[in-house]
Amino acid sequence: MMVYKPDKNGLQVNTSQGYKNVEDFLRGREQPLYLYSQHDVKSRIEAYKGAFSRPIDMRFALKANSNRTLLKEMMSEAIGADVVSIGEVERALEVGVRPDDIVFSGVGKTKAEIQRAIEVGVGQINVESLPELERVIATAKFLNKETRVGLRLNPDVSVSTHPYITTGLKENKFGMDISHLPGAISLLRTAIGLVQCHGLAAHIGSQILDISPMVQTAKWLRKIFEDLRGEGWALQTLDLGGGLGIDYQDENHDSDFVRLKEYGSQVSEVLSGLEARVLVEPGRFLVARAGALLARVEYVKETPYKTFVILNSGMNHLLRPSLYQASHRIVSVRPRGPTLVRCDIVGPICESSDVFGREKELSLPREGDWLAILDAGAYGYTMANSYNLRPLPDEVVV
Amino acid sequence: MMVYKPDKNGLQVNTSQGYKNVEDFLRGREQPLYLYSQHDVKSRIEAYKGAFSRPIDMRFALKANSNRTLLKEMMSEAIGADVVSIGEVERALEVGVRPDDIVFSGVGKTKAEIQRAIEVGVGQINVESLPELERVIATAKFLNKETRVGLRLNPDVSVSTHPYITTGLKENKFGMDISHLPGAISLLRTAIGLVQCHGLAAHIGSQILDISPMVQTAKWLRKIFEDLRGEGWALQTLDLGGGLGIDYQDENHDSDFVRLKEYGSQVSEVLSGLEARVLVEPGRFLVARAGALLARVEYVKETPYKTFVILNSGMNHLLRPSLYQASHRIVSVRPRGPTLVRCDIVGPICESSDVFGREKELSLPREGDWLAILDAGAYGYTMANSYNLRPLPDEVVV
Repeated sequence: MMVYKPDKNGLQVNTSQGYKNVEDFLRGREQPLYLYSQHDVKSRIEAYKGAFSRPIDMRFALKANSNRTLLKEMMSEAIGADVVSIGEVERALEVGVRPDDIVFSGVGKTKAEIQRAIEVGVGQINVESLPELERVIATAKFLNKETRVGLRLNPDVSVSTHPYITTGLKENKFGMDISHLPGAISLLRTAIGLVQCHGLAAHIGSQILDISPMVQTAKWLRKIFEDLRGEGWALQTLDLGGGLGIDYQDENHDSDFVRLKEYGSQVSEVLSGLEARVLVEPGRFLVARAGALLARVEYVKETPYKTFVILNSGMNHLLRPSLYQASHRIVSVRPRGPTLVRCDIVGPICESSDVFGREKELSLPREGDWLAILDAGAYGYTMANSYNLRPLPDEVVV
Repeated sequence: MMVYKPDKNGLQVNTSQGYKNVEDFLRGREQPLYLYSQHDVKSRIEAYKGAFSRPIDMRFALKANSNRTLLKEMMSEAIGADVVSIGEVERALEVGVRPDDIVFSGVGKTKAEIQRAIEVGVGQINVESLPELERVIATAKFLNKETRVGLRLNPDVSVSTHPYITTGLKENKFGMDISHLPGAISLLRTAIGLVQCHGLAAHIGSQILDISPMVQTAKWLRKIFEDLRGEGWALQTLDLGGGLGIDYQDENHDSDFVRLKEYGSQVSEVLSGLEARVLVEPGRFLVARAGALLARVEYVKETPYKTFVILNSGMNHLLRPSLYQASHRIVSVRPRGPTLVRCDIVGPICESSDVFGREKELSLPREGDWLAILDAGAYGYTMANSYNLRPLPDEVVV
């Protein structure tokens, strides 16, 4: 089902009261904004839960979107948070996540971050190296406060995604090599009663469209999980990470749900009979479709070679096209009829990479028109900057 | 001359009182920071002026670095500002630039930006398209206030730089095609006495190491300039843009000055005898070397395949390695002796592109050590973001 539905009366956005005209949210506005449909996010949470034939504990990856209003709505669905900095821990607490429902990952946790995480009682600190585990143990001892760790392991699994967002290869900085597991176990033995080995974790990347490495990783992790239990460690959580992608070119999003179902079903199968809490950390899957970056046409610039549609928003607000060569669908908020113009849609930033789309077809764009850059709800605002001393975009949740 | 000089007693930074120990500026600090040597920037301004055998008007490109303290120091050298947004106009005014010494470029100037620019009386608005020129004329008429424009032309000149930062090709969004010049002239005829055709401008890209296309562009622009003068237009400024690069691998920076001298001399030659104010818009050349991003080692993470040095600063603070595959030299602030360790130097961001350098050699890095990522004074802080909800870095001018 489409979140943003093109219509001759203007682009529609799906809400809990049915489709609404996007223009209704743009009245009186001139500056670019991210629009998020909370209805869509909530229905995706339901779909995610429903895709597994066993209970799962969802931990939303705040790095994809940390808008307070949206998070509060999401958290009313009884999911938790996957965070990667103390800033994200605080944001999670602020929007009402119970500390116990926070998983704290990331390769560079500082002493201060670890101390604060233990103090507030986050549910699980996923440690990514032996020195980090040493730091967690030392901090727990210093605070004399119990804490729980997950051991994030690096499965050395290759996935077909952008090389920037694969995280489970041995040349990536993430997770512990399996050969370090005995070392971790030895360290944990020095902190029994204080630092609980709560579970295992893996996360192999982002924007993954072929689920087989994800399923393979779940299987691999289960084996290690059961081995450790056999050795007497009372592991409780199996954290599969996130990474399920979306097809940015798929207009009606059906493929998202086909992929999700297949993922849920195959993972449920490889974990069947396992008595453990299974954590999943979706990010993009839940929020990407729900968000659109809305920007106004400042100029339609004709050259002998091209038509440029110059927007008032650029790579400063949505970095994905520049950074990952990502291609987002772009539509007119109010089409001007059937005539299509082939154009490059660009931003105002003084840099040639500031292009949202080349050779796109738009309905007769004119100065003052609003365009919607779709599927921008994940890794949009969270990566925005103030380059060229331009203000950050607004965010509106509907 | 090196701005940051490695030394067995610790990294030194060049200041107006000679070399100082970088560690002196790090006492009591834990968070990453950009350090800028204003002494170096000022001596580069002198060198830039001196490279030309004719007077030039420098307009520093604020997009490269808009730190207030540094800008104030720079502006005491009687240079002006090249800006690309109203935010940059305001910053320039704030640090004491005379409105007349501001050149306002950029492809996406909004009505509000143009109005404000005319109201404060910026020296020259470089217009990049016919619709923009129409907008400037309409705004000047509305305000009934004189203004001056430069016509930015696109020379369709190819340069050897990263494709993201070449700006003078016909497929780039920048500048006007030469075939639009008659159209621009016609528009200007409708606003005589109000919108003055003040000059011509071109800017072919950034980080250019081969100066010949820059010189070629200057020659090309002069020809059009003289043709227009011949037709009776009282042009006054020839704006050559910026773009002079630095060799990021060159340790002692000598090549910068060789290139600058050659550029200044060749440009002076092709412009010899021309009675005009020549504007130049250096950015990176003036500030890149002066800045270092200083970050602390959080972890030294050994794996069977690699040693990762994990810093407390990443692509959130310096995007160039991720965005342009840029390679910055990285040195220890206080080396621990001659033993070198081959390692990947990475940030804390949950993304595999968050790597400052692969297979670099460092002097026995340990937790708590400070590293300096050199040549980070341009397009560093200005492109920083809060990804992963991490705070922006500090900035310190010495």
